[in-house]
Amino acid sequence: MTDTPSPVATRRHGRVLEIVLTNTPRGYMNARMAADLLDTVRRAQADDSVGALLVTGGLEGVFIRHYDVGEIAQLSTALAEGKIGPENFDKGSNVLDLIQAMLDSPVPTVAAINGMCMGGGCEFALSFDMRVAQDGDYRIGLPETRLGIIPGVGGHYLLARLIGAARATAAVMRGAVFAPQEAYRLGIVDELVVDARARGLELAQEYAARPRIGIAATRRLARMIEAGTPQQEILGQTAREFAGTLIDSPETDRLIARFLDHGEDILAD
Amino acid sequence: MTDTPSPVATRRHGRVLEIVLTNTPRGYMNARMAADLLDTVRRAQADDSVGALLVTGGLEGVFIRHYDVGEIAQLSTALAEGKIGPENFDKGSNVLDLIQAMLDSPVPTVAAINGMCMGGGCEFALSFDMRVAQDGDYRIGLPETRLGIIPGVGGHYLLARLIGAARATAAVMRGAVFAPQEAYRLGIVDELVVDARARGLELAQEYAARPRIGIAATRRLARMIEAGTPQQEILGQTAREFAGTLIDSPETDRLIARFLDHGEDILAD
Amino acid sequence: MTDTPSPVATRRHGRVLEIVLTNTPRGYMNARMAADLLDTVRRAQADDSVGALLVTGGLEGVFIRHYDVGEIAQLSTALAEGKIGPENFDKGSNVLDLIQAMLDSPVPTVAAINGMCMGGGCEFALSFDMRVAQDGDYRIGLPETRLGIIPGVGGHYLLARLIGAARATAAVMRGAVFAPQEAYRLGIVDELVVDARARGLELAQEYAARPRIGIAATRRLARMIEAGTPQQEILGQTAREFAGTLIDSPETDRLIARFLDHGEDILAD
Repeated sequence: MTDTPSPVATRRHGRVLEIVLTNTPRGYMNARMAADLLDTVRRAQADDSVGALLVTGGLEGVFIRHYDVGEIAQLSTALAEGKIGPENFDKGSNVLDLIQAMLDSPVPTVAAINGMCMGGGCEFALSFDMRVAQDGDYRIGLPETRLGIIPGVGGHYLLARLIGAARATAAVMRGAVFAPQEAYRLGIVDELVVDARARGLELAQEYAARPRIGIAATRRLARMIEAGTPQQEILGQTAREFAGTLIDSPETDRLIARFLDHGEDILAD
Repeated sequence: MTDTPSPVATRRHGRVLEIVLTNTPRGYMNARMAADLLDTVRRAQADDSVGALLVTGGLEGVFIRHYDVGEIAQLSTALAEGKIGPENFDKGSNVLDLIQAMLDSPVPTVAAINGMCMGGGCEFALSFDMRVAQDGDYRIGLPETRLGIIPGVGGHYLLARLIGAARATAAVMRGAVFAPQEAYRLGIVDELVVDARARGLELAQEYAARPRIGIAATRRLARMIEAGTPQQEILGQTAREFAGTLIDSPETDRLIARFLDHGEDILAD
Repeated sequence: MTDTPSPVATRRHGRVLEIVLTNTPRGYMNARMAADLLDTVRRAQADDSVGALLVTGGLEGVFIRHYDVGEIAQLSTALAEGKIGPENFDKGSNVLDLIQAMLDSPVPTVAAINGMCMGGGCEFALSFDMRVAQDGDYRIGLPETRLGIIPGVGGHYLLARLIGAARATAAVMRGAVFAPQEAYRLGIVDELVVDARARGLELAQEYAARPRIGIAATRRLARMIEAGTPQQEILGQTAREFAGTLIDSPETDRLIARFLDHGEDILAD
């Protein structure tokens, strides 16, 4: 996009693609980072050799601090001058498209939260399949109402998926931010660890080791469940999807045969 | 309503309205308390100078013990004699209208649970945005099935919003009541503290400090989320609501300008 | 079904029916166990003298290890040879019918998880009203994707009811299994105890002591809540169901009268 180096760097670890975010000096998300991230995520999702996505922060103590408030002030001015309208926030926003791409990801996603993770950075983190937080003295949350705004790309909805709509609404209205220990207690992050990147990589490698056929069937069922499909329909579709993973899947046949030959440590380790 | 003093008293703390419930000697909720509470809540919600509601119990060790079972026995007799019908429980019930008023509150609400909080008192507490419970030897929960009845004003639904429908159903069928520590572990209350009223007042003051524009937008999104609106629609509406908080909002402009001038402690404190 | 002894045995404790599962030597669920369980559960549900169902494992350290993978391999072969189709997994499957029977149970259900509880065994356990897990060195979870399959009888949906759709999807994709302590922290099991069967029996006896009228009304409301019925409708129906438990219910009248005579220890014990 520009000549300055991208804040989005990547590294491969077998089937895991690690994305490192380094927007010096403060670690904000901004339009440039969102555009580069969206591009990187979409290319990874189209690449069959990528089995899981891991995202972490490249600055000490920062995952993504929050969205660049200076850019928000510019948007406010542009709105006031009639140069853009509310529709520009909905259609064609790279940040919103990024959240959508994460939610629809054919590839499982893990956020290694190594530090500050507020506002737009937290919204992004909430769109992952798993969040591993490093223990430490920093904050995770959605403080937007303190500035008279709200989380702009779905933070309220994404938080509701994790802690329920009532609790999410209370947290968003309050502009609440949490220490990592409290975020863990509330279920906003899944694990609290000494080294978020190291543990995140382990989890991403677990995901990357799973056959795609089961991941894809699970994503389809997830969409039905999240859409509030009636119970009977979900159970019926589950049974048919299960049958589907047994049909024409040499990988499943091979894994079942190996299991029957070698015992079940593979299931309980 | 009558000449006896109301069990519902109020006190102002800046933009916070504190409501203290003192129904001697046992601390039951009854028709009188429900009528006075409904009136007080509705007037507070119509008053722009009120930024948050705090409710606590005025009797030592009691928030609201439970609904007055003597009144329930009278209702049962009136039903048996055909003087009232099931429709009287649905339309024109002050207790049900009170729960609705809490759920639709334009003003954030905090329950400072300082003691016994069962049955109808617990249903009321579950309708708040946040619940702070004082540590101690008392019970929080819905024991109705022990008497062959059920929570009558939405307790099952309100508990499901906090701990999920399956767990709420199991608790209601069992008539389960919980010590405050266990209610905290389950997510029925949000904080467990030494002094519920003091902490509740702090939280209410945080809510009261937030600009109304963000609170109102968050309530609108909450209704969409709770109604099971499709994800794409919620995300789109979120982006437009975000734009809305930037348009014609001098308070937002002022807060963003102050943030850009003075740094970000305002977000992470 | 066959001449070999059934893996499903029963014992009565007053109004509680205990079901003990003993499929030597490994403790798998298989077609035989599913058929016998379905039959036992349906008969108990039709028996007015049964007030609660308790299920536990009869083998040391095993609730149900998981579904017999050898049988799954046979199904895979039968599918490949065209002898059965995906529709056979949906209609007329005893395992799926068993899950449905548990979810629609007029009688509350308690799983006493005394050991290994994975795959199909975990799916079954997730269909109960309550789960009590014995502390110990074993695993609870859904490792199916490790074999290239998915939970086949609703495990993903059932887990989502307990820990939310997003977290359930992440766990199923990963094929995650949990130690009992972690399953307890996540809310997959409700209590973590030294003796699962003893505590499960206590809970089942609590359920069995509740009048059926309140249980039945609660189940009807649970179906409305889980189906995503609009809030207003649920609250109205709740009020009418409450009135219903007061009408023509001599047991409710008797319990309320006893309460008014003897005080309220019955509610808070």
